Formats: sequence, C-alpha cells, structure tokens
Amino acid sequence: MNLHEQLNWRYATKKMNGQAVSQDKVDYIVEAARLAPTSSGLQPFRVLEISNPELKAKIQPIAYGQTQIVDASHILVFAAFDEYTKERVDSVFAQQENERGLPAGSSDDYKNGLMQSFAAQTKDDHFNHAARQAYIGFGMAIAAAAEQKVDATPMEGFVNAQLDELLDLPSKGLKSVTILALGYRDEANDWLVNMKKVRTNLSDFLIQYK
Amino acid sequence: MNLHEQLNWRYATKKMNGQAVSQDKVDYIVEAARLAPTSSGLQPFRVLEISNPELKAKIQPIAYGQTQIVDASHILVFAAFDEYTKERVDSVFAQQENERGLPAGSSDDYKNGLMQSFAAQTKDDHFNHAARQAYIGFGMAIAAAAEQKVDATPMEGFVNAQLDELLDLPSKGLKSVTILALGYRDEANDWLVNMKKVRTNLSDFLIQYK
Repeated sequence: MNLHEQLNWRYATKKMNGQAVSQDKVDYIVEAARLAPTSSGLQPFRVLEISNPELKAKIQPIAYGQTQIVDASHILVFAAFDEYTKERVDSVFAQQENERGLPAGSSDDYKNGLMQSFAAQTKDDHFNHAARQAYIGFGMAIAAAAEQKVDATPMEGFVNAQLDELLDLPSKGLKSVTILALGYRDEANDWLVNMKKVRTNLSDFLIQYK
Repeated sequence: MNLHEQLNWRYATKKMNGQAVSQDKVDYIVEAARLAPTSSGLQPFRVLEISNPELKAKIQPIAYGQTQIVDASHILVFAAFDEYTKERVDSVFAQQENERGLPAGSSDDYKNGLMQSFAAQTKDDHFNHAARQAYIGFGMAIAAAAEQKVDATPMEGFVNAQLDELLDLPSKGLKSVTILALGYRDEANDWLVNMKKVRTNLSDFLIQYK
C-alpha cells in the first residue's frame, strides 16, 4: 500500500477491541516520530509511551471518559518544550557538531542568530512553535501506524493541565499537546468504521499559481 | 522502502538542481496533505501550490534569499485559518452530513459544543490550533515527497506577514505557517547532502510507563 492507501485505510478509531499492539510495532511508530524533521533540527518535543493499565485508568477521566484511552494497549502523549532555553538549544547543536565530526562551535553563528530570534519572543511563542514541530512527529506516527496496520486515534480532547500534572511534565519543561491511542478497531461496535471519509474538496483545499 | 527508510533518505535539501517535479507527483504530495487527519475533521488550512517563476522570484527575498524558493519547481505554502468562524465550522459539518447520508443537523450537539469551546478562546488561540493541524498535513506531504523520491525542503524562514500580503491571504482568512519546496537535490553543491542525520537519542526522546 502506498501512503494514500494507508491514509484512506486509517480513521480515528472510536472503539478499540483491547488487543495489544506488539512492542515491535509501537517501537516502529515512535521511531517515525523521532525521525520526523523539525525546525533547525531542534526536536522540541518528547513522546510518553504509556501501557501501564493503572496510569491509563487515571488518564481516562482527564480525557472526558473516552474509552480508547483504556482499550488502546498503548497511548503516546506528545509533549512540547515549554520554552527554548539556551541549554536546550546548545545541546542540540553540540550533538550535531559531535556526530557530524565538525569542530565544536562551528554552528555558533547560526545558533546565535536562532537564540536572538527566540529572545525576541515570549515563552508562549516558544511553546506554540514547539507544539507545531510536535505535530509533524504526530503526523509521522499516524502514517507509521497505518503502514503497520495498527489503528490509531488522534486525540486532543483532554484537559492538558491535568495531564501535565499527572505526568509531572512541568518538572521536565514539557506541556502535553496531543495523544495518539494505539490498538485495533472493534468493527462491530465502532460507529465511525463504515462512515465515508470526508475531506474538503480539492478545489477548495488547493490554490494553484501556475 | 518503508516509512523509516523514506525518512532516512530525505533531508532538508539546501541546494536543488532546477529539475522540475512532474505534476503527477506534486498532485500526489498535495493529496497526502488533504487526506491528513485534523481535529474534528476541520481541515483548517489550505495549500498554495506555486510554480509560477515570477511569483517564486517575488517570494525569494521574503524568504531571506534562500535559493530553494526559485530552484524548486514547485513550492507549497501551508496557510492556516486565522479563526474558526461559525460559517467555516457549519460548512465542515454540513459536508460531513451530506456525504455520509446523515440527516441535516444530526451533528448539531457535537458542533455546538465545539463552537462553545471556540467562543471561549481568542482569535490567536484559534490560529494556533489551526496551525498545528496544518503541520499534520505538512508532515504527510513530507512523507509523500520522500515516498515519491522527490526532494523537499521544509522552510519556516520567511517573513510571514510579507508573504501573506503578497498572496492576499488576509482576504481569504488565512495566514501562512510554513513552506515545502519541491525539487531535486544538487548533490555536487549541497553542503548538507552527505552530513549524518542527527536526532535526539531515543533514551532522551522517549519516556515509557510500562
């Protein structure tokens, strides 16, 4: 199947059957998020992979009782940096220079320009920028799940502050942005499974300048 | 090639060779963005596909002179809704009901809840939410390009307000968020092509709760 066929196969699974996704497949999905490109290679997000049943049960009420949280064998919480600190940015460029065999400091001009632009922004601006990068990784994880024939539900419906507190994200400098629940569709009991996929018509979606 | 191999093949191409991407492949890449999932199916973004040389030449200075803008045969500008208006949200649910053969108004409870939550937010909140959805589509377009062996450069380095003005985006209720330049790598002249791809170590990227 090509990417189009995978995207047409997938849907936002509303009812999962409880079957566990193998750790191999979960690893594959997480790795796709890790390989996703991000602005200046900053990768300003982390993935929290939660298969612990007690912890999933605590998350369910924070997600308005949605059943996928507990019926999914794994949920991936995407959490973005709450700000771009000098330490975080330095660490990214130090790793790049090190792994590429470049002299330490060879990225300083670029890095300092970047830090200057961040210095002119608010912490909210930083977070909003970081959150967007997290959504690239989120998209790659969705594509990877479909490729692996794993059902996945993208979920924004939860109380972010409560999830952040439960997972102790402030101490990690992170804020939750979205969840991907991983499992397998319960075809007999999912109202959405046979509904037509609806998308904005191409004539509205695309504007061409030839 | 699977998605991992595609993501490892791709890189943020810094120098393109001027060879044109076929319209078939561009269509395929845009379609992947159109098929991307978004919050409540709102698809709050549009893609502007620009192959017109004069227009690309006008965009280049807005993108700090970066050569990919003109060496790419096509650039895709991702532009997000500047706000969630009642008209926009109504239109999405009316289309869903229509294409799914559901009675008109059958989504009203869900839709009204959504509109209530949007009413409690600022226009900036709307735009930030819409921009994140655009980045899911952006991710899918990046994956689609790699699958098609088309080189693609994700570009945030441009003056958004100037690009918005040039493309008359305010009149469309849109704000540019990111660009994907499509073309083919110039291996002999791209400083990045042979550099190691660097990513945050898995042990830092992933937090597991088993």
